[in-house]
Amino acid sequence: MADLAKLSIHQVTLLQQCTTPQFIETMAHHDVRCASLWRDKVREHGVERTAALVADSGITMSGYCFGGLVTSPDAREAARARDDVRRALDEAAALGAPCLVFVAGGVDPAEKSIANARTRALDGIADLIPHARSVGVKLAIEPLHPMICATRSVLSTVGQATRWCDKLAADDIVGIAVDTYAVWWDPDLEAEIARAGKRICAFHVSDWLVDTQDLRFDRGMMGDGVIDIPGIRAMVERTGFDGWVEVEIFSQRNWWKRDTDEVVETIQERFESAT
Amino acid sequence: MADLAKLSIHQVTLLQQCTTPQFIETMAHHDVRCASLWRDKVREHGVERTAALVADSGITMSGYCFGGLVTSPDAREAARARDDVRRALDEAAALGAPCLVFVAGGVDPAEKSIANARTRALDGIADLIPHARSVGVKLAIEPLHPMICATRSVLSTVGQATRWCDKLAADDIVGIAVDTYAVWWDPDLEAEIARAGKRICAFHVSDWLVDTQDLRFDRGMMGDGVIDIPGIRAMVERTGFDGWVEVEIFSQRNWWKRDTDEVVETIQERFESAT
Repeated sequence: MADLAKLSIHQVTLLQQCTTPQFIETMAHHDVRCASLWRDKVREHGVERTAALVADSGITMSGYCFGGLVTSPDAREAARARDDVRRALDEAAALGAPCLVFVAGGVDPAEKSIANARTRALDGIADLIPHARSVGVKLAIEPLHPMICATRSVLSTVGQATRWCDKLAADDIVGIAVDTYAVWWDPDLEAEIARAGKRICAFHVSDWLVDTQDLRFDRGMMGDGVIDIPGIRAMVERTGFDGWVEVEIFSQRNWWKRDTDEVVETIQERFESAT
Repeated sequence: MADLAKLSIHQVTLLQQCTTPQFIETMAHHDVRCASLWRDKVREHGVERTAALVADSGITMSGYCFGGLVTSPDAREAARARDDVRRALDEAAALGAPCLVFVAGGVDPAEKSIANARTRALDGIADLIPHARSVGVKLAIEPLHPMICATRSVLSTVGQATRWCDKLAADDIVGIAVDTYAVWWDPDLEAEIARAGKRICAFHVSDWLVDTQDLRFDRGMMGDGVIDIPGIRAMVERTGFDGWVEVEIFSQRNWWKRDTDEVVETIQERFESAT
């Protein structure tokens, strides 16, 4: 049985039901001690006002999501994207989040070069490191599912993330976010997680539904799909990771349509039975 | 400029427009010298009748697609699936196809063990080898995109396929099919293809559309997406592969709705400009 005290809930899981104040209130009401915030919603309410709410609530932050998309071949556009990541880092610091989830960016359709996109992503992260250090917020680089490689992330595996970390040589301020939904299919997952080791600074869970209908917004509740979530959690915890287990479910056809209390209660139940 | 003489067209590309006789006739009409057949359509027309048509047409076969799905934890169901693969091998032999594209199968939703599914897939292939040898048709194991891992293929990368081949130790009768659509995102692709080497026995092309809307039936025409197809082709050909380049486009919203001649002419044009 999983320890409910490790549960963190990502704001995006209640994206369509709650404003930011309602989300914080819901977490407090259900005694969820940790949460991760979704940048678009936070900015809707205002960063400072959200930071005050978070401080008042006593809820711990496990992360701030997300910044990145720095792979444009247009130098000015890429510079603007990096500036935006710096703002996101500032916001994360104001909110008391220990890390900013970093989403690399996709492949330019005119250039058609995944290799160039990866080079620019890596250069972009390197460029952001001084600012991340100055505000004390880790860049949690997150491999995303290969099905969103073209548009969201040319970083696709934990092994690749580790190689990027090797090159960046900045373990104090760059870590790896492992998300079960993004990596469960990887034939080398166990070895890759072991090698990532202490670099793993965030762990996200949700399930893969057999009848998945959308490339981004059709994630499943833990236990409703095919992922051996406890197995992957065990791999991550064998590295020494003892941080929060963050539930992050994008679900247009199901969970975003349900009553807030039902969603949180189901998460708590499944956290114990299937995480 | 790609040599049009290497072009093979997969029947599934005209799945909704043509019966099997119409497909063969279309290939002949456009002087396409090689094709790959789609099992469901062939069986609709009859294997023997199709074999006679193929022989009359003088069109070379690059493959027969597909057999597999042998990962069920139910022993009887798995045995039935393997029997069906044996029939598919017989059909491929009758049609003069050098290989049967082998699709491993997915993860059982009750069992939730990708590791067990992989073990059963590998055992299943081993069990099929004697029959494949007896009819002289290669099992072309094909890594498929991780987004269809749950339902179709727990074999997801070229590197994993090579490790399976290492274990099977049957290079005379088990090869690897590389499909640009399935593997383009892989950060280790170049090294994996080099290591696969002479085991690569089939090469399939199509493109990844930026606005992909379906997990299986929304592939793009070469040049319409983000994949550097000539780059991947060069990697494959550096291994010594000089076989057919098979165009395989599942496209519910676009190419399956278009006029047959337009599709084939576009393929020929794009084969020269973007393959």
